Amino acid sequence: MQLAKLQDTSDYLIAPDPGASRLTRAVAGTDHEGNPVNANVVEERPLTIFLNSQEIVTAMTIGDYPDYLALGFLRNQGMLSASDDIKGVDYDEELETVVVRTARQTDFEEKMRKKTRTSGCAVGTVFGDMMAGLEGVSLPATPVKTSWLYALSARINRTPSLYLEAGAIHGTVLCHEDKPLVYMEDVGRHNAVDKIAGWMLSEDILAVDKILYTTGRLTSEMVIKTAMMGIPVLASRSGFTAWGVEIAQQVGLTLIGRMKGQRFVCLAGEDRLIRDADPAAIPKEPRRAARKGAK
Amino acid sequence: MQLAKLQDTSDYLIAPDPGASRLTRAVAGTDHEGNPVNANVVEERPLTIFLNSQEIVTAMTIGDYPDYLALGFLRNQGMLSASDDIKGVDYDEELETVVVRTARQTDFEEKMRKKTRTSGCAVGTVFGDMMAGLEGVSLPATPVKTSWLYALSARINRTPSLYLEAGAIHGTVLCHEDKPLVYMEDVGRHNAVDKIAGWMLSEDILAVDKILYTTGRLTSEMVIKTAMMGIPVLASRSGFTAWGVEIAQQVGLTLIGRMKGQRFVCLAGEDRLIRDADPAAIPKEPRRAARKGAK
Repeated sequence: MQLAKLQDTSDYLIAPDPGASRLTRAVAGTDHEGNPVNANVVEERPLTIFLNSQEIVTAMTIGDYPDYLALGFLRNQGMLSASDDIKGVDYDEELETVVVRTARQTDFEEKMRKKTRTSGCAVGTVFGDMMAGLEGVSLPATPVKTSWLYALSARINRTPSLYLEAGAIHGTVLCHEDKPLVYMEDVGRHNAVDKIAGWMLSEDILAVDKILYTTGRLTSEMVIKTAMMGIPVLASRSGFTAWGVEIAQQVGLTLIGRMKGQRFVCLAGEDRLIRDADPAAIPKEPRRAARKGAK
Repeated sequence: MQLAKLQDTSDYLIAPDPGASRLTRAVAGTDHEGNPVNANVVEERPLTIFLNSQEIVTAMTIGDYPDYLALGFLRNQGMLSASDDIKGVDYDEELETVVVRTARQTDFEEKMRKKTRTSGCAVGTVFGDMMAGLEGVSLPATPVKTSWLYALSARINRTPSLYLEAGAIHGTVLCHEDKPLVYMEDVGRHNAVDKIAGWMLSEDILAVDKILYTTGRLTSEMVIKTAMMGIPVLASRSGFTAWGVEIAQQVGLTLIGRMKGQRFVCLAGEDRLIRDADPAAIPKEPRRAARKGAK
């Protein structure tokens, strides 16, 4: 990979793998001048997640880390609790399924049986459960230096990624102070953050001293997932929704958006910011970092 | 509105309404220099869609055109057919629900009862039904002039919109030749296109001579929805997924992506393109059109 040579990612615990042949495909087409082109496009596959014997959801995903995706999705939905003893995570590539097995019958299964009987579809139910899981959540007032935010943004934008290679994909990065640790990408709107959650659960990672960076918008769902993971800071180069801001203020999440070059806006948790960086000293973003492809 | 004065939108049948007070909210925060700012952010509300007595889905939406959203969602999922006699669409703002009533018991309700009994959750089911609805779909080989595509892209990028006002929102535009007709925006990933589908169903609009333009990615779901609507051309400024391209080729949808300034890539339906415009004569996009906010 040309790009991979440009920047060393050996300090990441998990970095993007833009060279993985299973994640992108060259598709023959034509460009604006009518010339043949081989466009590099990302893969998109269905993955059906089971909790014990129960089918929970079919996610559209790029297909890497199905085990982390399943664990993280179930954890962020409140279907797995910290006390659950996970007996196994079995991925079947051919069947496009992943089964998470727990020692005890999960509460959720009983709840789900009841709710699907009355309401027919679990989409709303799942969302309702996420909101219910937030009750009583109060994140710690972890201080955040603006110099960290600038360093993270610059580093992440320059890290070789599927986005830079093929576009049309979202990235989420788990960070500690000024260092990105785990950088997940996915076509599915919230899969990237769920994969991070699954990795944290598997590795038993402390959340209170972490920062989550996302290329996506700061919607209610993204804010809820971050809070469910216990991470006190969420930063994005993209914009906000009003409900996302409201929930962040409620649970004590520091919320920073519209981060581009020296600019950002903080709409929750201003009192945790330590403004140790001079914005005027921050260089403009390189043009490629504009991320116009992943809408 | 300052922006609204800049460009007349009276030729649109439905144009964005960036001045509507119910769709955005000013939220107090701080900027990168620590100065107080009032950030204009889009609203995001849950809307639960019922088909007759059955709860189908809870969508996160900006909240305009709930009736079109409900009709279009059900139509694109194959839960409403062209022959269904719609008796009413009742929106209750306080309960955040919309109920679509049909003359006959819809097939879908029986199917849903059966499937939820065996599989527990309908998310996968709903997706499966969308794919099933595509069987036998073959779109007409409607010719598309590249001059239309360039004209549409330029016009849409300059139309006053919630995106230009507050960011963090997707747009989908129904077009005829070089004219945009209906421009819908939404925070929810696919709500904008569902609102267009609902409008087309309500107004009994011919699909075979239309072009759909979206600011979002050309994923499998977006391609399936466009095909379900019978629209033979889908264009986007954003990128592709491999499965989206495969489905487009299967159903005969002309698929154009990465449209920015003079550039675009066609990955399906090249034989329908009439290349009547000289790309070299197309001006670069204005900086604001880069749409960096709606990821």
